[in-house]
Amino acid sequence: MAQEKKLVESITSRDEDFAQWYTDVVKKAELTGYTSVKGCMVFKPAGYAIWENIRNELDRRFKETGVENVYLPMFIPESLLNKEKDHVEGFAPEVAWVTHGGLAELQERMCVRPTSETLFCDLYQKDIHSYRDLPKIYNQWCSVVRWEKTTRPFLRSREFLWQEGHTAHASAEEAEARTEQMLHLYADFLEDFLAIPVIRGRKTEKEKFAGAEATYTIESLMHDGKALQSGTSHNFGDGFARAFGIQFADKDNQLKYVHQTSWGMTTRLIGAIIMVHGDDSGLVLPPKVAPTQCVVIPIRQKAEGVMEKSEEINTALLAAGIRSKVDASDRSPGWKFADQEMRGFPMRIEIGPKDVERGECVLVRRDTREKIQIRIEDAAEGAQKLLEKIQKDMFERALAFREAHTYTAEDYDSFRDIADHKPGFIRAFWCGDEACEDQIKADTTATSRCMAFGDDEAPEGSRCVCCGKPAKKLVYWGKAY
Amino acid sequence: MAQEKKLVESITSRDEDFAQWYTDVVKKAELTGYTSVKGCMVFKPAGYAIWENIRNELDRRFKETGVENVYLPMFIPESLLNKEKDHVEGFAPEVAWVTHGGLAELQERMCVRPTSETLFCDLYQKDIHSYRDLPKIYNQWCSVVRWEKTTRPFLRSREFLWQEGHTAHASAEEAEARTEQMLHLYADFLEDFLAIPVIRGRKTEKEKFAGAEATYTIESLMHDGKALQSGTSHNFGDGFARAFGIQFADKDNQLKYVHQTSWGMTTRLIGAIIMVHGDDSGLVLPPKVAPTQCVVIPIRQKAEGVMEKSEEINTALLAAGIRSKVDASDRSPGWKFADQEMRGFPMRIEIGPKDVERGECVLVRRDTREKIQIRIEDAAEGAQKLLEKIQKDMFERALAFREAHTYTAEDYDSFRDIADHKPGFIRAFWCGDEACEDQIKADTTATSRCMAFGDDEAPEGSRCVCCGKPAKKLVYWGKAY
Repeated sequence: MAQEKKLVESITSRDEDFAQWYTDVVKKAELTGYTSVKGCMVFKPAGYAIWENIRNELDRRFKETGVENVYLPMFIPESLLNKEKDHVEGFAPEVAWVTHGGLAELQERMCVRPTSETLFCDLYQKDIHSYRDLPKIYNQWCSVVRWEKTTRPFLRSREFLWQEGHTAHASAEEAEARTEQMLHLYADFLEDFLAIPVIRGRKTEKEKFAGAEATYTIESLMHDGKALQSGTSHNFGDGFARAFGIQFADKDNQLKYVHQTSWGMTTRLIGAIIMVHGDDSGLVLPPKVAPTQCVVIPIRQKAEGVMEKSEEINTALLAAGIRSKVDASDRSPGWKFADQEMRGFPMRIEIGPKDVERGECVLVRRDTREKIQIRIEDAAEGAQKLLEKIQKDMFERALAFREAHTYTAEDYDSFRDIADHKPGFIRAFWCGDEACEDQIKADTTATSRCMAFGDDEAPEGSRCVCCGKPAKKLVYWGKAY
Repeated sequence: MAQEKKLVESITSRDEDFAQWYTDVVKKAELTGYTSVKGCMVFKPAGYAIWENIRNELDRRFKETGVENVYLPMFIPESLLNKEKDHVEGFAPEVAWVTHGGLAELQERMCVRPTSETLFCDLYQKDIHSYRDLPKIYNQWCSVVRWEKTTRPFLRSREFLWQEGHTAHASAEEAEARTEQMLHLYADFLEDFLAIPVIRGRKTEKEKFAGAEATYTIESLMHDGKALQSGTSHNFGDGFARAFGIQFADKDNQLKYVHQTSWGMTTRLIGAIIMVHGDDSGLVLPPKVAPTQCVVIPIRQKAEGVMEKSEEINTALLAAGIRSKVDASDRSPGWKFADQEMRGFPMRIEIGPKDVERGECVLVRRDTREKIQIRIEDAAEGAQKLLEKIQKDMFERALAFREAHTYTAEDYDSFRDIADHKPGFIRAFWCGDEACEDQIKADTTATSRCMAFGDDEAPEGSRCVCCGKPAKKLVYWGKAY
């Protein structure tokens, strides 16, 4: 294998230089490309196909809960952005401004949406009059723009793809239920579909979304021990409704403000897949999200029966619903193995003349490289079972990794020691004071990731890891992307 | 019915004021909404769901021909837009300019893409080196911006949704074949899926796309006799490749320029569906594209067995793959009939207590209002056959309408008379001179729509309808959206 791998350009070792390894994988698996547009990325076919699978599956899950898709303008007039005070403060410094349309200067400049709360409020203000008009459970798939100074493919770029759900409800309870429902939908999606375990929890006041009453988050752990905020769900209460005047006549004939939520996931999920599952041979895609799940690789393809059996196996796999293809190019088998591994296809099937003689073929797992000899007629069923097992094992492995990299800090010395030497999550008590979050960040670069659902209680007598005052919450801390 | 219809807001008569009728339908079928963003539209759930069906079906057909989806930045630096002379002249007057990112002025302003030829060229220039890198058959689904002065929902707005395919090939022949292939794919899609007959043909020099060697088009006829350009496919030859320096080493080791194409369809197709098929009761959706294909409407829903049988029928329809639902709201049956007609769902099923007694229900076509009594147990099969028939009949009716509104003009007097009094296509010979196109436009507002494939020959002795000189081509003329 060593020699064959050289046929494909080599990748920097993951443990040697994680950032360079990431860049290499993204490039060599041909997920992204570059144009002259600074800070913006190109999603090439292999990268975009992953996003399509994410989008289709999420969209299916959304619709099961009553979500309806819409599309709103990409521009936001400055006066509209300015309507909610906290919100504009959060976003104005990082938006792109359109000042001219055609040959004329605009009377009012507009930003390219960094997020669309203000536009949905504008629409809801026009469309919601009665309790009969509620709830609105809208979502849109689009791109948004945030003028980042430093960028990295998938993780941080000036334009990225996402979905943003925006809902309006008659009651605070219903809004809160939707906020939590979507957070759990996101969490289940990551765990089930992307094989990425997550911590579900609530953001502190300091870390919550601009304009939100409460922000819930799912946090996942990358292989380098850094946290990635992987999806957020916000409860706005009636703050936006008051700023935009979104009122409805309720059943009791009283005029009331609606309660709103928003929730989003982005193409940074592709970065999470890479950084949780990838290895020194390249990308490793969980079977459910992999655009190609299996490659059949003929060995000595001119030998009698090899191509014929390869096609036969591939046809059987396709019929079983497996996204499979034959690599019949004129490259060597070793080059093809390395290429399949680089691109992260979850498994391959090798078949050569001797296999054909015996009526067998070899299934090879991408994640463990385990080889399984199997009868050709059993290949499709075997592949199906193997893909299920790979999906499950990848999740278990990522979970074990996270558990092995989650530490508890009893005092500030131990906190700083863990932060300096043990990449991962740090569980530690906190007094609830933003000053301690600032102090911890200044000392360690770690931030409060979340207060986990059902696991955020600070027992009586516990002390803040930073200031030593009585603690209010148990917090997951970590250095984050 | 007359009385019931009043329960739903009335629609302007189509023959009285077509433009107002269109506006009414778009609004009352809840396809679009408005925000404070001038000239940009909101796609509401009913409108966006039509686009999703169009997108999914087109995407499926694209992929069958080897198309791969990608996503490129939404911004184009001014210097990049300026690289191809004809192209920039065509688009620069109507783009939106971003001049500030975050709090700083940009060193170089960027436009929001009006179309992405220049970006794809920028990418291809970086990615194509050898004949092994060809062909590139890329497509993207996105929104584009053109700073229109007057706008109409779906037909002309400052931002619209579309797909744009961009390909690069080793030979001129291959590029030409792809250009024509996509045009025919578009035409088949409109005829088969949207039940809209089209004329397939070539644009004149005057009407072709900025930067193209040849533009092919499909032209459809709206109910008011105006033409709608419904999709275009362009062959760029090597013009863009020369401007951007996109060269590859061919098998013979010679450096050569690639040959390129692009092709696109937009959300104006939704406008076409409305204007071809709609009537005085509202929208009429062809079954294949309709998000909801059938509504089961219980009559006296509290009577014994009515709701039960309604659900039973709906379940059977869903099981047969029909997009069906029950309208169990507290409105009257008459209101529900009118509502279903307004929204253009292709059929409804009425079932009341007497029907239940007899074990029957009534299928009602949206397009003709024909009623069909049928056994409840045969409802799903009957609905399936009926939807197929509606799809076919809608196409035939639109084709008959177009044929009845296609005229031939032998001389200029008759041309002007038809243009003034008979809305539709005018077939007339043309000398090939742009001056005659200008003259005809000035006199009648009609433009050359296309020279139809296989039907564009001017026989010997034929004369230009405008100047009387020997004719070169038979052209379809029309007033256009």
